[in-house]
Amino acid sequence: MIKFIEKDPYAPIQYAYEVSRILYRKKSPFQEIMVFENPFFGRIMVLDGVVQITQRDEFFYHEMLAHVVLAAHPAPKSVVVIGGGDGGTVREVLKHRSVEKVYFIEIDKEVIEVSRKYFPTVAVGMNDKRVEIKCMDGAEFVKSRKADIDVVIVDSTDIVGFAKTLFTKKFFRSIRECLTENGMVVTLSESLHFHKELVVEVQKTLQSVFPVVDLYTAPIATYAGNWWTFSIGSRGLDPRVIRNTGRIKTKYYSPDIHKNSFLPGDMYDRLLSGKMGW
Amino acid sequence: MIKFIEKDPYAPIQYAYEVSRILYRKKSPFQEIMVFENPFFGRIMVLDGVVQITQRDEFFYHEMLAHVVLAAHPAPKSVVVIGGGDGGTVREVLKHRSVEKVYFIEIDKEVIEVSRKYFPTVAVGMNDKRVEIKCMDGAEFVKSRKADIDVVIVDSTDIVGFAKTLFTKKFFRSIRECLTENGMVVTLSESLHFHKELVVEVQKTLQSVFPVVDLYTAPIATYAGNWWTFSIGSRGLDPRVIRNTGRIKTKYYSPDIHKNSFLPGDMYDRLLSGKMGW
Repeated sequence: MIKFIEKDPYAPIQYAYEVSRILYRKKSPFQEIMVFENPFFGRIMVLDGVVQITQRDEFFYHEMLAHVVLAAHPAPKSVVVIGGGDGGTVREVLKHRSVEKVYFIEIDKEVIEVSRKYFPTVAVGMNDKRVEIKCMDGAEFVKSRKADIDVVIVDSTDIVGFAKTLFTKKFFRSIRECLTENGMVVTLSESLHFHKELVVEVQKTLQSVFPVVDLYTAPIATYAGNWWTFSIGSRGLDPRVIRNTGRIKTKYYSPDIHKNSFLPGDMYDRLLSGKMGW
Repeated sequence: MIKFIEKDPYAPIQYAYEVSRILYRKKSPFQEIMVFENPFFGRIMVLDGVVQITQRDEFFYHEMLAHVVLAAHPAPKSVVVIGGGDGGTVREVLKHRSVEKVYFIEIDKEVIEVSRKYFPTVAVGMNDKRVEIKCMDGAEFVKSRKADIDVVIVDSTDIVGFAKTLFTKKFFRSIRECLTENGMVVTLSESLHFHKELVVEVQKTLQSVFPVVDLYTAPIATYAGNWWTFSIGSRGLDPRVIRNTGRIKTKYYSPDIHKNSFLPGDMYDRLLSGKMGW
């Protein structure tokens, strides 16, 4: 049996997947892109040795990354998606009728092309007329905007390598400046099982920039540590409250999941003060 | 680097762990028992090639298995733990002051001995005077009781091999007969990511025996699929309601986690009717 063993230097468990067929394997100017087929997950996209999406379970991550902030915002019109070259997050954003414009900022255009070819149900929203694709650095894009964006969604690779600039105070400050009054940003922030210290670091960096910061989780089988976290910075609105009640079709996200996914207050306090007890 | 790769024939992802040192490796009459050391998780106990507990994260599973039913019961006095030879579940049960008697039924006494030696903080409750250890088949034990047990906790290995008898209608019927009026049983029921069909099967088997059946989850990094489920059968009480408000010291479980861990109603209905959409 041929196996792909994930190459994540920060994960204390390595995940091994059966490989039925390798469909694509090439170095872009930014990273090595690979697509292979697995009997359970279907097609799997790997960047620099780390699984990014699988056909079977990508919706868990994309729904949870997009819908919490979009439901907490009363009526998001202009949205920026940074990274997420597969298009899954953009697909979810477009489900909200209030959304008029999506700036889709992916630095590596080869990821977009690979997704269009091998993951058509994920890339499905890329041709929507509300979407403007820009192959550039997300940090540069947000610096160019001024108080006209309702929601920024950072859908990067892990907090290592070239994605590291997407987790700095400087970057979050630029985001704050590009947001409207009710604006919010959400970013992945790794696993509570494997990278608790990174989760806290992202929370504290956001707290130094935004008056309201929060944390929610989702169970994602294909991301190391799988008790995956998402960090929100808000210019004022409490992201636990659902204000945008427009109906969207989802498989995992729902108003109940929205509420239950935030860390209980006592656990959040223990996390931030380093007293989780593990 | 020496790796242990989990041998779980039903898991679509195999987990690989670094091995710093092998501490124990022997076949008992029931299974192969191994203990090794890992830099992140500390000591790890493996039965027949599948990770059972790790020093670092065992409390997630043990707390969530024990405390939900024990908190939903108004005042559990007599408790049966079937399996869980490591003693972690017994340790959690003993935290409840109302508990007067714990029948600890483990078929493989070598697991108990290995845990006493290599996992003293897990086996810590085994010598408590409220605990009666019986090395026998759990199904035989429950058949011998009659309406005098408040809570039964089934802490078995995966639903394959010799543990399979602990998931039959016949076994659950014997449990129902040994329970008091407010009695409840809880059992692990595998992963919603990897074994959805098994989860549904356990729920339906319980529904054919108990008037109230429910399902809750916890994120467990070291169990395949990690979005782990627990299935409850109750003679009448709703397990989502907390009635036993005695304080216990835990790292993960809390009243908020209790409430949030149950599947939202719409997702539960979709699961049972085979309409999860994945």
